[in-house]
Amino acid sequence: MARSDRVRVAVLGATGYSGIETVRLLACHPLVELTVLTSEHYAGREVAAVYRHLKGLDLPSLEELRPGAVKGRADVVISCLPETVGASLIAGFISSGLRVIDLSADFRLRDPEVYRRVYKHEHPAPELLKEAVYGLSEFRRRELPEARLVANPGCYPTGVLLGLVPLLLKGLIDPSSIVVDAKSGTTGARRVPNVEQLFAEVNENFRPYKVGNHRHVPEMEQEISAILDREVAVMFVPHLLPINRGILTSIFLRPRAGTTADDIQAAFEAAYAKSSFIRLLSQGEMPELRNVRATNFCEISFVLHERSHTLCVITAIDNLGKGAAGQAVQNLNLMMGWDENAGLLNIAPVP
Amino acid sequence: MARSDRVRVAVLGATGYSGIETVRLLACHPLVELTVLTSEHYAGREVAAVYRHLKGLDLPSLEELRPGAVKGRADVVISCLPETVGASLIAGFISSGLRVIDLSADFRLRDPEVYRRVYKHEHPAPELLKEAVYGLSEFRRRELPEARLVANPGCYPTGVLLGLVPLLLKGLIDPSSIVVDAKSGTTGARRVPNVEQLFAEVNENFRPYKVGNHRHVPEMEQEISAILDREVAVMFVPHLLPINRGILTSIFLRPRAGTTADDIQAAFEAAYAKSSFIRLLSQGEMPELRNVRATNFCEISFVLHERSHTLCVITAIDNLGKGAAGQAVQNLNLMMGWDENAGLLNIAPVP
Amino acid sequence: MARSDRVRVAVLGATGYSGIETVRLLACHPLVELTVLTSEHYAGREVAAVYRHLKGLDLPSLEELRPGAVKGRADVVISCLPETVGASLIAGFISSGLRVIDLSADFRLRDPEVYRRVYKHEHPAPELLKEAVYGLSEFRRRELPEARLVANPGCYPTGVLLGLVPLLLKGLIDPSSIVVDAKSGTTGARRVPNVEQLFAEVNENFRPYKVGNHRHVPEMEQEISAILDREVAVMFVPHLLPINRGILTSIFLRPRAGTTADDIQAAFEAAYAKSSFIRLLSQGEMPELRNVRATNFCEISFVLHERSHTLCVITAIDNLGKGAAGQAVQNLNLMMGWDENAGLLNIAPVP
Amino acid sequence: MARSDRVRVAVLGATGYSGIETVRLLACHPLVELTVLTSEHYAGREVAAVYRHLKGLDLPSLEELRPGAVKGRADVVISCLPETVGASLIAGFISSGLRVIDLSADFRLRDPEVYRRVYKHEHPAPELLKEAVYGLSEFRRRELPEARLVANPGCYPTGVLLGLVPLLLKGLIDPSSIVVDAKSGTTGARRVPNVEQLFAEVNENFRPYKVGNHRHVPEMEQEISAILDREVAVMFVPHLLPINRGILTSIFLRPRAGTTADDIQAAFEAAYAKSSFIRLLSQGEMPELRNVRATNFCEISFVLHERSHTLCVITAIDNLGKGAAGQAVQNLNLMMGWDENAGLLNIAPVP
Repeated sequence: MARSDRVRVAVLGATGYSGIETVRLLACHPLVELTVLTSEHYAGREVAAVYRHLKGLDLPSLEELRPGAVKGRADVVISCLPETVGASLIAGFISSGLRVIDLSADFRLRDPEVYRRVYKHEHPAPELLKEAVYGLSEFRRRELPEARLVANPGCYPTGVLLGLVPLLLKGLIDPSSIVVDAKSGTTGARRVPNVEQLFAEVNENFRPYKVGNHRHVPEMEQEISAILDREVAVMFVPHLLPINRGILTSIFLRPRAGTTADDIQAAFEAAYAKSSFIRLLSQGEMPELRNVRATNFCEISFVLHERSHTLCVITAIDNLGKGAAGQAVQNLNLMMGWDENAGLLNIAPVP
Repeated sequence: MARSDRVRVAVLGATGYSGIETVRLLACHPLVELTVLTSEHYAGREVAAVYRHLKGLDLPSLEELRPGAVKGRADVVISCLPETVGASLIAGFISSGLRVIDLSADFRLRDPEVYRRVYKHEHPAPELLKEAVYGLSEFRRRELPEARLVANPGCYPTGVLLGLVPLLLKGLIDPSSIVVDAKSGTTGARRVPNVEQLFAEVNENFRPYKVGNHRHVPEMEQEISAILDREVAVMFVPHLLPINRGILTSIFLRPRAGTTADDIQAAFEAAYAKSSFIRLLSQGEMPELRNVRATNFCEISFVLHERSHTLCVITAIDNLGKGAAGQAVQNLNLMMGWDENAGLLNIAPVP
Repeated sequence: MARSDRVRVAVLGATGYSGIETVRLLACHPLVELTVLTSEHYAGREVAAVYRHLKGLDLPSLEELRPGAVKGRADVVISCLPETVGASLIAGFISSGLRVIDLSADFRLRDPEVYRRVYKHEHPAPELLKEAVYGLSEFRRRELPEARLVANPGCYPTGVLLGLVPLLLKGLIDPSSIVVDAKSGTTGARRVPNVEQLFAEVNENFRPYKVGNHRHVPEMEQEISAILDREVAVMFVPHLLPINRGILTSIFLRPRAGTTADDIQAAFEAAYAKSSFIRLLSQGEMPELRNVRATNFCEISFVLHERSHTLCVITAIDNLGKGAAGQAVQNLNLMMGWDENAGLLNIAPVP
Repeated sequence: MARSDRVRVAVLGATGYSGIETVRLLACHPLVELTVLTSEHYAGREVAAVYRHLKGLDLPSLEELRPGAVKGRADVVISCLPETVGASLIAGFISSGLRVIDLSADFRLRDPEVYRRVYKHEHPAPELLKEAVYGLSEFRRRELPEARLVANPGCYPTGVLLGLVPLLLKGLIDPSSIVVDAKSGTTGARRVPNVEQLFAEVNENFRPYKVGNHRHVPEMEQEISAILDREVAVMFVPHLLPINRGILTSIFLRPRAGTTADDIQAAFEAAYAKSSFIRLLSQGEMPELRNVRATNFCEISFVLHERSHTLCVITAIDNLGKGAAGQAVQNLNLMMGWDENAGLLNIAPVP
């Protein structure tokens, strides 16, 4: 496509982990032109001077974030800014007619009270909460084409919901018992100076954190409750894996009486019949993080353990792919009415 | 202690991962003399020619395993041979008056029928099954001093039972729902040529395996059922971590109505009041694998999640330490009537 | 391009590390159709059943290697078979009119005596040695379009020669002193069962091996000597890095009297003016393995250390990329007269 | 030994990487009592609240560094403070009659002009430079018993000098060509917030840094020049390894005409005849980092490559062991006239 016909995209916070992955994906997207890249720390430098793996690509220089300078140069804004930093700016972009995909948690929770409880301050733009589309792409194909503001889901909620929603929709499980044990690579944390994330603190180590009180839990519970039309509580245990990328999620559920493995398989097949990025595995196959690395794919399998009346669903995503930048690009594709897969069908480098 | 007064120990299968860790520990044990070290692959060589980190120690050469050559030169045999290889030899050692600690699974299951179902062949020495003491040290201090044959627990069962038994003994949980999500370093697998364990297959990867059907499950269920005097079923999901050593285990339970965090804390404190190797963590602290690396320690903490009526107990051990060689040495200490901690109070190298 | 107009390629030994990387690259190549994939271990299975990251691609099933079955179904053969296994088959392919790119060392050494000395047996097809083109792509652009047989360079020689040849061509260094210190990820070794390559043997470890006597040395020396028209000896020290992919190579040289940093910079710029895959770094920048991961790029920089009269040239490649499969595809492109970059401009996934 | 007869040691900067390793070693030292532990960030807390692997040991609480509070409570000060922070304090300790081992670079360079050039500021206590003993233990056994101030060598210089000094002393090499290629684990850098040391920046990566201009070079050159009584220049290339601990160092040298492998072997054997911590390897054996992990050992081997007239000496140490805390304890032992090995003969945990 001629460059002038491409949709112009600004990436805010382009040099963090999800920001630079968004740049990597969009630099090769056939229908997009990256026109604005902002960075608090590296403004004034070339992208390739900070991230040399992007050398040779025709990218704009990194610049400070000035909202006025974004309007007029971009059609869509993808914000990789941290929580609260971007929220009030985003309201301005929306009112100027830009469409926005926000990778922060700011617009994921629909209830400003819940937001205040979780993030300990008032929501900066509560008027937008109702409008924002929660961009779990596979289940929002109808809303996304019209969306002005997309709240890109959190990495953990993505891993949980992709394994859970099809079962909820078919009523196959008892929602009073949802236990999730998740393991994430380190790029789930921000790229900021931090002793806890130093190599020697993470390598040859493995540990849970924020057991039962991670900020992503209200997001999961909101989406699950909305489907079931009742309050649910999720017990969520995240862990820090000594790898760069990937989230493997085990979801332990009580199947409703009479639920068979065929029912479960059928629920997944129905939900994902049109989904290129969901890899439903065969009986006996298990998700592996390496198979989704640096991609937008999600692997899903399950074991129905009759002896303990437990259903275990396991999903694997790349936290920077389907868990962040990949899903953002997928949402962009859907917003624009493009092929959902455009720019996203790269293959994981294995090993 | 004068060398001649020391107890003479033979380590069979001394060059596998648990074997060489046993050698490392006993080489510094003040009451033990290593007199026989056998190795199928390296017989005839010095230990230090295979494992140079043991250079400079006064160790016997590696030799072929000939039972006749063990008798008369050792008082205790620690067998690190694989399943079934050692079982019939062990019967011979016992009848010759040697005491034996077996790190394989051969004598852990008391019912030969269960053994046949799990291992797909007849048990080689079923007459010893009743006598064997299941060596979960903290709970067998009474039986071990008289034991002729100790079945050293599996690494996964150790991580599960140390977190579970105190609660079972106090009747604090509903045994109809026991879900375990465990993550193990790679030395849990044997040191044999194997494509699945090559560095490039494990590194930057993470995957579950044998979901719901791992061979260690009958062992866990046997021990739990024995305490409760009823059949229980455990849903067990193990994973392969890209680290050398360590097992982190999350145990998800339904607390009985009325159970408080104080009840749980009290149960752990009562069970482990005399246990040097159990580190009960404070509220808010979480186990980390690095804190138990290369030691016999076990870290334990728990979260009682009221909203979901779920109790999550988390334990961390070194699979080669408390999960194998460390516990074997602890059992040796208890068998001999020595200080339970002898030779075992080394500090984890962190980082 | 219509599928029927594409060049048909057979990959032999498609399920080893370099084989599957070749498949990954060619599966997305716009001018190639993969028609034959052979595998000794996995014949009869789908590729995606062995390597799930390739699921969803339209690939032929894995089959046994029967030369007769390759002829007629392929125009070009890329052989990822081990040394000597493929050599005699290749002669047959050539005489049947197929063109061959061989990733083994079989056709890299032009002198069958040297081959016999290094590999301890007679060369299986010595008549082809003179014809084979040593496929260091950047320096064989003229010969490759006519080549029937391309000997794809070894991974270590590629890392050395890309940093050395421009300097040799300009006569900037004293060839009597060439010292190379190289560090390779583990996929440089074959994907076969091997205790030395188990995760726990490589992780948290680092070690040199075959110091001064690695099999790749005669290959380096042959190419260097050919340029200089005199015998040279290289001191080569390889190491095993605990990472999956990548070779970082330090080359220590004595610059000829009067050689300046500008001379060296100019030599590199002249040699690589038309080379998309060579990234000459700026003063002060240093190669990093992650920047070339899963790509065909090579990063090069140098430091002229006046105080010690030493020139240090450092290069970084992916051993499976520019060091094997990537360079094979680049050579294919050049053989076919296509754009040298076709199918190869993917971006490294960083981090 | 009765606690009251032990030597009282203060560790300043006890919660950095080398500080906490010093604490780990001295906590088990039979002749030492740790009486003061200071920490800028964690003052007021228990050691075990910061580093749980030290739980259960009888250690003083962490406190702010107040020099007056150290005097009177300690006989020896081991300073793990960063460059310049400790230097002026140390002068005060010395004048108060305490003996000091300083792990920073402050007292390693004897010439204050060189210090100013390297560290860009005036030396804080130049009057002590002449008195300070450079604590490369194996070569300072005579000076250390009288030393008031020991400058503990840098980690890189230790790896270099242990491989080089025996050859210099025997005049076996041409000092006009000394090239060093070294690879260090990440605990060589300080434990402070730092984006470059985040896990995802280091893992699956490998890179050189400060090529030819690392701050440790003047230290190496000073020690080499002192032995040879002439100026020498070292070309030094350090790299960052994705492991926690360890430095592997390759030293490339020109042997003097006529030097044989036997000469070199003899030089090493003579130099290290009484050294428990130096492991001279046999022909064909190569140093590995894992064999020295968490210990004070140094492995050394060499290859005399006749074809290229190059001698390659390779050493392996733990940068926190022989490269920092281990050597500090060894120096303490020598200062006190104790067994040089006291508290240091622990075995590396392999794997």
